[in-house]
Amino acid sequence: MHLHAALITALNVVLIFVAMLLVGRARGRSGIEAPAITGDPGFERAFRAHQNTLEQTMMFLPVLWLATLYSNEKYAAWLGFAWLAGRLWYVFGYIQDAGKRSGGFLVGFLAFALLTLMALWGIGKQLLA
Amino acid sequence: MHLHAALITALNVVLIFVAMLLVGRARGRSGIEAPAITGDPGFERAFRAHQNTLEQTMMFLPVLWLATLYSNEKYAAWLGFAWLAGRLWYVFGYIQDAGKRSGGFLVGFLAFALLTLMALWGIGKQLLA
Amino acid sequence: MHLHAALITALNVVLIFVAMLLVGRARGRSGIEAPAITGDPGFERAFRAHQNTLEQTMMFLPVLWLATLYSNEKYAAWLGFAWLAGRLWYVFGYIQDAGKRSGGFLVGFLAFALLTLMALWGIGKQLLA
Repeated sequence: MHLHAALITALNVVLIFVAMLLVGRARGRSGIEAPAITGDPGFERAFRAHQNTLEQTMMFLPVLWLATLYSNEKYAAWLGFAWLAGRLWYVFGYIQDAGKRSGGFLVGFLAFALLTLMALWGIGKQLLA
Repeated sequence: MHLHAALITALNVVLIFVAMLLVGRARGRSGIEAPAITGDPGFERAFRAHQNTLEQTMMFLPVLWLATLYSNEKYAAWLGFAWLAGRLWYVFGYIQDAGKRSGGFLVGFLAFALLTLMALWGIGKQLLA
Repeated sequence: MHLHAALITALNVVLIFVAMLLVGRARGRSGIEAPAITGDPGFERAFRAHQNTLEQTMMFLPVLWLATLYSNEKYAAWLGFAWLAGRLWYVFGYIQDAGKRSGGFLVGFLAFALLTLMALWGIGKQLLA
């Protein structure tokens, strides 16, 4: 049942975990001690890449499952995999340079936007039926 | 199946998205460049309004669905819509003035608290049955 | 249906709520006014304990439910309760001293890591079946 959405969800967790490890590595390299979260550009980029991925995940996971359950499961899965690819690109771009975060952000955002429209369309159609 | 909870979840995503756009607008207006997240009160208010909405969403969505599935679906939906209204008021209040964030926060919080009690009650009753 | 995972999810929300109350208390004690989030070590520790709990929750809840639905429900429940215990220890350790956050973090992390492996294994096995 919904194995592709389940796999995308699990891989999303792995992605967040990788972004978290990169924050830990940047903390070590920069010497910024917890609880401080500012003071070194490299640490701040890794920190923001992780935070932004968490923020986007909070919008992505609900619409991934709503689109899967209330609209088209197959299209939702393709968009889910596209989101994962965009976000991977985003995280590894951002930690190199703040300017390199745009491409991956855009891919992830487009996949998210389409999933949101699918979810709203599917739910709306069934509410009005 | 659970169309109202699904609609509330989708609208919650739209709400977070609007709060995110307001952060982007405040970044532009204030000239605060990523990854910095401090340095301008207007930007910090928009940033905190978005962050706080994400934080509350993480507590709201689980209890919305638990109350829907394990307690009373109809009451859960009314409380879900009340939460959305409170949070919309919170975000647009906070970006104007930090003091204007209380009213909307309270409405959202009351809806959240009731959903939590409904969830715990429903699950507890079934566990002890 | 999945009452233990439901209970763990509800208690997780209560845990986040407690961590949030501790941030509010630290804000009061330190005199740090919103939207500021820095300026006092005690406030920053409470703030980070809450934030980190939110971050871990975003990885925990998906794998708790994936492990429950696609792998072994009973083991998933035990790991879920272990995660809650670890996180409670983490939050109350961290607000005392940044050095006291490690023990609880480790317990929560091990439970999370096992749930992730269970989820990936269960989903993978069914995808390849």
